[in-house]
Amino acid sequence: MRYLVKVSYNGSKFSGFQYQKDARTVQNEIESVLNRMHKEFVRIHPAGRTDAGVHALEQYFHFDSHIDIPGDKWKFALNSGLPEDILIHEVREIDEDYHVRFHSKGKTYRYKIYQGTNRDPFQHGLKVYYPYQVDEQKMRDAMQYFIGTHDFTSFSSAKSEIENKVRHIHRFDLIKTEEGFDFVITGSGFLYNMVRILVAYVLEVGQGRWDGGRTPEILEAKDRKHVPRTAPAEGLYLERVFLNEKALEETLQEMKNNLEKH
Amino acid sequence: MRYLVKVSYNGSKFSGFQYQKDARTVQNEIESVLNRMHKEFVRIHPAGRTDAGVHALEQYFHFDSHIDIPGDKWKFALNSGLPEDILIHEVREIDEDYHVRFHSKGKTYRYKIYQGTNRDPFQHGLKVYYPYQVDEQKMRDAMQYFIGTHDFTSFSSAKSEIENKVRHIHRFDLIKTEEGFDFVITGSGFLYNMVRILVAYVLEVGQGRWDGGRTPEILEAKDRKHVPRTAPAEGLYLERVFLNEKALEETLQEMKNNLEKH
Repeated sequence: MRYLVKVSYNGSKFSGFQYQKDARTVQNEIESVLNRMHKEFVRIHPAGRTDAGVHALEQYFHFDSHIDIPGDKWKFALNSGLPEDILIHEVREIDEDYHVRFHSKGKTYRYKIYQGTNRDPFQHGLKVYYPYQVDEQKMRDAMQYFIGTHDFTSFSSAKSEIENKVRHIHRFDLIKTEEGFDFVITGSGFLYNMVRILVAYVLEVGQGRWDGGRTPEILEAKDRKHVPRTAPAEGLYLERVFLNEKALEETLQEMKNNLEKH
Repeated sequence: MRYLVKVSYNGSKFSGFQYQKDARTVQNEIESVLNRMHKEFVRIHPAGRTDAGVHALEQYFHFDSHIDIPGDKWKFALNSGLPEDILIHEVREIDEDYHVRFHSKGKTYRYKIYQGTNRDPFQHGLKVYYPYQVDEQKMRDAMQYFIGTHDFTSFSSAKSEIENKVRHIHRFDLIKTEEGFDFVITGSGFLYNMVRILVAYVLEVGQGRWDGGRTPEILEAKDRKHVPRTAPAEGLYLERVFLNEKALEETLQEMKNNLEKH
């Protein structure tokens, strides 16, 4: 049978999600617990990989197993074997033809920034310190250009091998926090490094280094050279994975209600 | 001339404070910046060492230098060279015969515990998860036995080579927080692992494993075997170093006012 698992992890001590020989990755840790339980190799399939240092507030993966126990027992067994920086929230059986990467309908990412006179050693690895003054309105104006369906070649790593770089962005919001602000972006899918490149670009627009009004031209150019920087991994959190269209619609409606109240 | 430096650090990615060849320690990082500035070896002298994983909200060290620049310039130069998990707060010149370890008048440590249904991956390395029910009154009652002057042989690591194990504890408080509680202890000095052993003992009293009323007997026994456990390093924060008698008195008065208000 196939099980779907909801997990969160603190990425700061992991070399990313994906399995690597001789590295501490989220996949290595989870598969090693599953291998011990099954006495054979079990592969897990995530909704998407996250890079070294990137966190997940909510990530999903599925795996196939001959062990038939209730979700709560799975959850307890997995959490007992896993290190403190990974937490399993839920395990449930799903259709054997459901594949979370192919069948999910998009994701939300959050990027956390803190400001202030001094950096804070206790935010290290969890938020990014950005001491520069930024013009909030300039950032919000630039961010609107990304909403809708666009070719994101200019805002993704040139290393990517995926050919189709068209993605749909549902929302891209700036949310003030006690110590700074978060960027929250929801889309049908994201290219390699895309959120971190978008954030780096928007911050530089906020600092006045680029004219945000030129954003459509940069999108049009389909060339990474216009956007040289990538924001650091440690500010990035995978926040939601939408397992189906309904979950996506509900969350978008919620976000609309919450954000437009202010 | 001699400079006194106030520093804080997140201990979670350090192998402790003290210099070690081929390890990432706080002293290695700071001395390597000073060595670059001086083009010669400069040694720093802390108020006290902290173990691997232990944090400092406030730590002091001093060093001697022929470089004569104002404190603010020192602060800027050091912070520019240091990694994000160390922050210099203040640098100032002091008498060349002041030695922070010998002349300071005590320290405050804080130990942070969080409770709840699930562990939190984002507290990993910063607080200790203690899901067990504890009796607050039993803990507070046991903690009172440690106040005053005692031989702490039973509550310190047998590995320590210091012969005189008598220390004076000024206060030992339990403070409720949003997610759990903190232990806050102020004393003239602390033996190796002493705070972590006291915390482990008090938690077990709270759980009902030991009768806290037997604390005076255990102190009297002067034998570590009665208190087998040591609480994990990651919950421990060096919170204050009292540079002189006046600073100690003022803080004790403040604590009295704050804590006895409730």
